[in-house]
Formats: sequence, C-alpha cells, structure tokens
Amino acid sequence: MRTIQVKSGSAGYSVFVGRGLLSTLSRRLVNVRGKGPRGVFVLTSPEIWSLWADAFLESFPHQDPPSILFLQPGEEHKRLRTVERLAEQLAEARADRSSLLIAFGGGIVGDVGGFLAAIFMRGIDYVQVPTTLLAQVDSSVGGKTGVNLQAGKNLVGCFHHPLAVFADTELLQTLPSRELRAGLFESVKAGIIRHPKLFGYMERNAGAILARDPKAIEYVVSASIQMKAEVVGIDELENGLRMILNYGHTLGHAIEAATRYRKLLHGEAVAWGMIAATRLGLARQTVTRAQADRIEKLIFEYGPLPSLRLPVDRLLDAATRDKKNRSGVRRVILPSGIGNAVVVEDVTDAELHDVAESMLRTARESSATTDSVKE
Amino acid sequence: MRTIQVKSGSAGYSVFVGRGLLSTLSRRLVNVRGKGPRGVFVLTSPEIWSLWADAFLESFPHQDPPSILFLQPGEEHKRLRTVERLAEQLAEARADRSSLLIAFGGGIVGDVGGFLAAIFMRGIDYVQVPTTLLAQVDSSVGGKTGVNLQAGKNLVGCFHHPLAVFADTELLQTLPSRELRAGLFESVKAGIIRHPKLFGYMERNAGAILARDPKAIEYVVSASIQMKAEVVGIDELENGLRMILNYGHTLGHAIEAATRYRKLLHGEAVAWGMIAATRLGLARQTVTRAQADRIEKLIFEYGPLPSLRLPVDRLLDAATRDKKNRSGVRRVILPSGIGNAVVVEDVTDAELHDVAESMLRTARESSATTDSVKE
Ligand SMILES: NC(=O)c1ccc[n+]([C@@H]2O[C@H](COP(=O)([O-])OP(=O)(O)OC[C@H]3O[C@@H](n4cnc5c(N)ncnc54)[C@H](O)[C@@H]3O)[C@@H](O)[C@H]2O)c1
Ligand SMILES: NC(=O)c1ccc[n+]([C@@H]2O[C@H](COP(=O)([O-])OP(=O)(O)OC[C@H]3O[C@@H](n4cnc5c(N)ncnc54)[C@H](O)[C@@H]3O)[C@@H](O)[C@H]2O)c1
Ligand SMILES: [Zn+2]
Ligand SMILES: [Zn+2]
Repeated sequence: MRTIQVKSGSAGYSVFVGRGLLSTLSRRLVNVRGKGPRGVFVLTSPEIWSLWADAFLESFPHQDPPSILFLQPGEEHKRLRTVERLAEQLAEARADRSSLLIAFGGGIVGDVGGFLAAIFMRGIDYVQVPTTLLAQVDSSVGGKTGVNLQAGKNLVGCFHHPLAVFADTELLQTLPSRELRAGLFESVKAGIIRHPKLFGYMERNAGAILARDPKAIEYVVSASIQMKAEVVGIDELENGLRMILNYGHTLGHAIEAATRYRKLLHGEAVAWGMIAATRLGLARQTVTRAQADRIEKLIFEYGPLPSLRLPVDRLLDAATRDKKNRSGVRRVILPSGIGNAVVVEDVTDAELHDVAESMLRTARESSATTDSVKE
Repeated sequence: MRTIQVKSGSAGYSVFVGRGLLSTLSRRLVNVRGKGPRGVFVLTSPEIWSLWADAFLESFPHQDPPSILFLQPGEEHKRLRTVERLAEQLAEARADRSSLLIAFGGGIVGDVGGFLAAIFMRGIDYVQVPTTLLAQVDSSVGGKTGVNLQAGKNLVGCFHHPLAVFADTELLQTLPSRELRAGLFESVKAGIIRHPKLFGYMERNAGAILARDPKAIEYVVSASIQMKAEVVGIDELENGLRMILNYGHTLGHAIEAATRYRKLLHGEAVAWGMIAATRLGLARQTVTRAQADRIEKLIFEYGPLPSLRLPVDRLLDAATRDKKNRSGVRRVILPSGIGNAVVVEDVTDAELHDVAESMLRTARESSATTDSVKE
C-alpha cells in the first residue's frame, strides 16, 4: 500500500492506494474520523453494489451496517434533482452533521456524492472509495464536486475535500477494459505534463498494465495521484498551475460536446485532444518531432481509440461555445518536452483549425470502430 | 453611513448601513470588486423590483444595465429546482467565473442567491442588498446560504460569504409593518443575548423605531449587525458561541413547524420562543424576576404578536423532530441577566413542558389575531 498526502487550503488528507483496502475499510474510517462507525451512509450504483457489496460490508459490524443510497449509472443522473432526492433520503434516514458519506463508485458517484456531502446541512464529512481507474487517478482527488446543467457539464458544484481517499486497485478487476483504457489516458496525461518517470514506465510496461498486473497498476495509480496531488496542493482553486491538468481537454471537451457525449468516453476524447495539442506543440516547437512521436505512440499503445467522423467546423464551434472559456481568452496547454507543459494564450483560429483538422484526419482513419473497442 | 467589518475564515468583508446606498451601488461595487461594472446579475423578486427598480438602476450605465433574474416570493420557491432554473439562466446569459451576483431582496432572495453564487461554476462572487429588516439585521450577515427540502427548512446549503453587504435603510420604508416588527424581534434578541446598550435603546425608543425614524432605524440595524458580526467572527461554522444566536429559536422553529409555517412569521415565532426561554431562565435563576419582566415587556413592545392555539404536546413533538437536534443533545439558550446568554444542555422534558405550557397559555390569551396584526 502507498499513501499520498494531499494538501488542501485549510487541512490535508491522505490517499491510500493498494489492494484489499475495501475489506478493512471500517477500521480505517475509525482512524480518519477519530470516532466509531456510527452514522455511515454509502452512495453507490446498483451494478457496483452487486459486484462488491460483500467485500464492502465485510469490515462493518453485522448488526449495524451502513445505510446504502443508490444512484443509477449514466451522466443523465448527474443532476440537481438526483442530489435533491438523495438529500431527502439522508434526512429521512436521520443523517445529521456528524454523519459520514462514502462515495463508492466511479467519477459520477464521486462527483455527486461529494457535492451531496458539500451541501447537506451545509457540509458533512465524506470519503471517496473510487472504483474506476479514472476515478482513482483523477476525479477522487482535488476536491472538485458537482453536477451537470442542461447548459453544460459540471456547471454547478463545490470545492469540498474528502476526509480521505481509499483507492483499492483490486476493484479494477471487474472494470470493463474499455473503461480501464479510457482512464489510463489520464495517467498518460500525467506522464506527459509533469511525470517523466511515469511516462517511461507506461512506455515499457503497457502489457502488464493492460493485463491489470497488480504491481504495475498500483504504480500507475499512485504516480498519477502523486502528480495531481502536487499540482492541486500548489493551486487548489484553479487560478494557475492547475490549468495544466487540462492538457488535451480543450478539444477533448469539444469532441464530447460535438458528439453529445455518446460516442467516446471522456478519456478517449481527451486522448484525441492530447494528439491535437501535441501537434500544435510540434508546430510551435515546444516539443521536437521525436518527442511528439513518442507521445503519440504512447497514446495509441493504450488504444484502440474509436474512430471519429466530425466536420472540423462543428468541433471548433463546440470549442468556442465551451462554457468555461467565456472570458474570451483561449488557453491551450502544450507539452513542453516530455514531463512538462506550458499554457499558451495566443493560439490563433488558424492554428487551432490546422491541428484540429490534422487530428480529425487521423481520427477518421482510425481502424477501430466503436464496436471493436467495446470489450 | 456606518461600516461594520465581518471577519470570515479566509478573508473579511464590510457591511455598509445607511440611507441612499442603493443609488450609488454601481460605484461601490467597482470598489469592492476592484474592477468595472461588467458581468453583473441581479436576483430579486417581482414585487421588490416594481418598487425599487428605478433607484436600483440609477447608478448603473444606462447602455449596459445588469441582467435581472426573478424569484417569486414565498418559502415554497426556496428549493433546489429554483436554484437549477436560475443557474440555467445564468449559463444562458453567459455568466462566467468572473461574474457578480447581487441578491436584492429579503432573506429568501438572500439565501437562494447566496447559494446560487456558492455553487454556480463552483463559486462566484456575490453581494447582498437586503430589503427587509430581518435580512438586514440577520440573514445577510454570516455566510449561511441554502434552500429547503421537503424534510425541513434550510437542510441544504453552503457557507459562502458575500464580497460586501449594502443595507440601505431607505428600502425599509416600503416594508409592510408586520414584516418590520417581525424583523425587529431579531434585534430584540441581539440586545438580550449580547448587546445591553441596544436593549436599552430599544426600550427607550420603540416609538421612533416603529415609526421608521431614519436615525433610530440606522442605529438598531447597525448595532444588531455589529453583534452578529462579532459572534460569527469568533465562531464561523457554528461549533460554539454562534449557538447563542439560536436564543428563542428552539421553540420558535417548533412553533413554525407545528403551524406549518402559515400562521406566524419567523420573527413572531421566535418572539414566543424567547418568552418561553426567558421563563426557563427565571426558573433556573439565570435571570431575576425583574430582568425577565423587562425582557417580556420589550418583546410585547414590538408586538402585537398573533395569538396561537396549539396543544403543548404538538409543540414538543415538533421540537423533538427538529432535524438539527438529532445527536440527542437538547441545547437551549437562556438569557443570563440582560445582554448575555448561556447554553444549557440538561433541560429535562418536564422543564420544557412547563415553560412551553406557560408560554402557550399567554399566546392563547393574546388579544391580537392574525388579522389584527396585518397592516
Ligand atoms: N471531480 C473531478 O475532478 C473529475 C475529474 C474527471 C472526471 N470527472 C467526472 O467523472 C465522471 C466519469 O467518471 P468515470 O469515468 O469513472 O465514469 P462512471 O462513473 O460513469 O463509471 C463508468 C462505468 O463503470 C461502471 N463501474 C464503475 N466501477 C466499476 C467496477 N469496479 N467494476 C465494474 N464496473 C464499474 C459504472 O457503473 C459505470 O457504468 C464524469 O462525470 C466526469 O465529469 C470528475
Ligand atoms: N441565512 C441566514 O443566516 C438566515 C437567517 C435568518 C433567516 N433566514 C431566512 O430568511 C428567510 C426570511 O426572510 P424575510 O423575513 O426577509 O422574508 P422574505 O424574503 O420572504 O420577505 C418578506 C416579504 O417582504 C417582501 N419585501 C421584501 N423587501 C421589501 C421591501 N423593501 N418593501 C416591500 N416588500 C418587501 C418580500 O417580497 C416578501 O413578500 C427565511 O427563508 C429564513 O430561513 C436566513
Ligand atoms: Zn479528464
Ligand atoms: Zn431567526
């Protein structure tokens, strides 16, 4: 097991990474809460619960199990009305300010659960027990919580840090392999923007990682979290450094929006976005040809990426309409060598058009279809 | 004009109290924001807007007025679905992280607006321009924001401090007199629990205050805010001292719940609650008979209070079901002399029953009817 410290504005918390954390959870909670196992509520999804309920409940007192709340899977349930229903359920079950909420699931459960904990009685404690690779390496760390509006993703939410994060890598054994690979693109991102050692490791060990070798997975997960924890510790509220985490995300989000979140998983869209940003880096000479090639090669190593047929104008339209880029400044994150990134603000429409077109050409020709990337 | 500093966890903000603040608002906002008047959104209610729109808009550039969002009056609109609709409107109107929201209304507009600002894009700036006495002396200061659930009032929300509060006492000229008096009970509370000078002032100047004499009102509002600012500065998150602000509120909330929020205004219910708590103080000798009499006399000075017919058991039931008192400990705030309060945790059922019954007897015999207290 590895432990990573995350510094947050007021306090700090630990992220535990390793196998078998789930079966000792109750005892660990007593440590982080400094009190007994009373008043524990779990938010999870029916699928995850059907796979992992026994292991989850193992460490809790059998006479006094935690109360379980359910969230149906899918982005369409990541909405305020779901949060309201769950808050009513907490109130009916007599949760109070001293209760603890455990978010046990992927990024959606984590974002909804964290937000619920942030606003229920103006804030109760919660912990994250992430069950997808994406949630372990990315969404469970950093304190961003929230839900979607009609007008866009994650447009309402809070910064609310968990008391602790328990990333049990064992949980990833039941994850569909497409979900695993999509999450790994965030680790690839971590390597490219700030962790050259992780980058090299992912180049050399793609086979072991994709086969979910416990040691390899544990290293990738903990190195990715380490990177994010550092960045978030320096810039909690996304005023500066934290922006580099958006590498691949400007066009990634635009791809997701332009395809209505139906065709690609988030990590896959980000992968295409990283390819475009890397080509822009090449044009701007923030990376050499050799470095750009290594980056693209690593991304495709964790493919296949579903092919994508999208007119370039639709994509650029979606990029401009991005609700988070309104102040008019267009910020793009470029790799700077391998293991470093820069934020540039003077990218012209023409430059963006060129790399978007070049990326879309590759994406159109990708041999994989959405079906062939499904497990 | 008077200025009161409020210390909040991370930063601090100013509360400005005086006449005519509204007509200079835009310039004042530039000062507190440190930038121009762009990206300003106003949340208000149709009634308030019809009375005060001209004065409000006076100081804003006529070519570039702020965008107005509306909230219908009434507790039934203080809900998450309203917040969601308003957030969609903000997004459609291209609000972003640098936008400012002005909550221009009573406590409901303030609580909803503050919460909207707390969660829109994970937090944008807002200022309070309270238009009721209650909002000026109580709800606009302290950073508590939120909305109701079916299961109870104010059960979801955030702590989110405004950039500044502008309490223009001129606005109170159009307030129905029953609303004015209900708000004044919170000032009476401030005097009893921590501000003997305000208590004495309210004893001597009831006539001028109720006649809305500008000087008298300005003193009462600023002294009440001063008291709350001090308490909140010491105990932002309600772990200790802030509890004294709940004087009169244990039974006050129970009265509101038992009458389904229909018969009494919040301040009126709190007034009856203060009477009961004072009688408990007398029984426990935290106040002398003479002090208890002065307190009751002052409360009735700002009446009439609507009479109340309620079986004592219904009231005590509601008090026990109070969602915020679940941990099992019953905390009651008693006056301790005049200008001081104590928190007691060992009040027995029998003691509570006695004072509740005694208060309800007075309330039943109150000559005023709900109609006669209406303007
Ligand atoms: N808060 C942040 O900082 C942050 C960062 C990145 C992404 N996100 C959010 O995360 C969400 C995406 O998260 P995600 O990729 O984890 O998707 P997800 O939560 O939808 O999970 C993907 C699917 O895998 C299933 N699943 C989860 N764990 C499983 C397991 N162990 N075995 C089998 N099936 C399992 C889920 O039920 C679901 O069907 C998005 O809403 C995104 O906005 C948030
Ligand atoms: N956040 C806090 O710390 C805190 C503290 C106390 C109360 N509150 C909340 O405040 C709310 C009650 O606030 P309230 O008493 O201001 O009620 P309110 O907001 O409902 O306003 C009362 C009525 O007066 C009208 N009105 C407001 N200003 C007016 C004006 N200048 N002229 C004419 N009419 C005007 C309103 O439209 C409304 O009909 C409750 O929801 C309560 O939970 C919050
Ligand atoms: Zn991402
Ligand atoms: Zn009150």
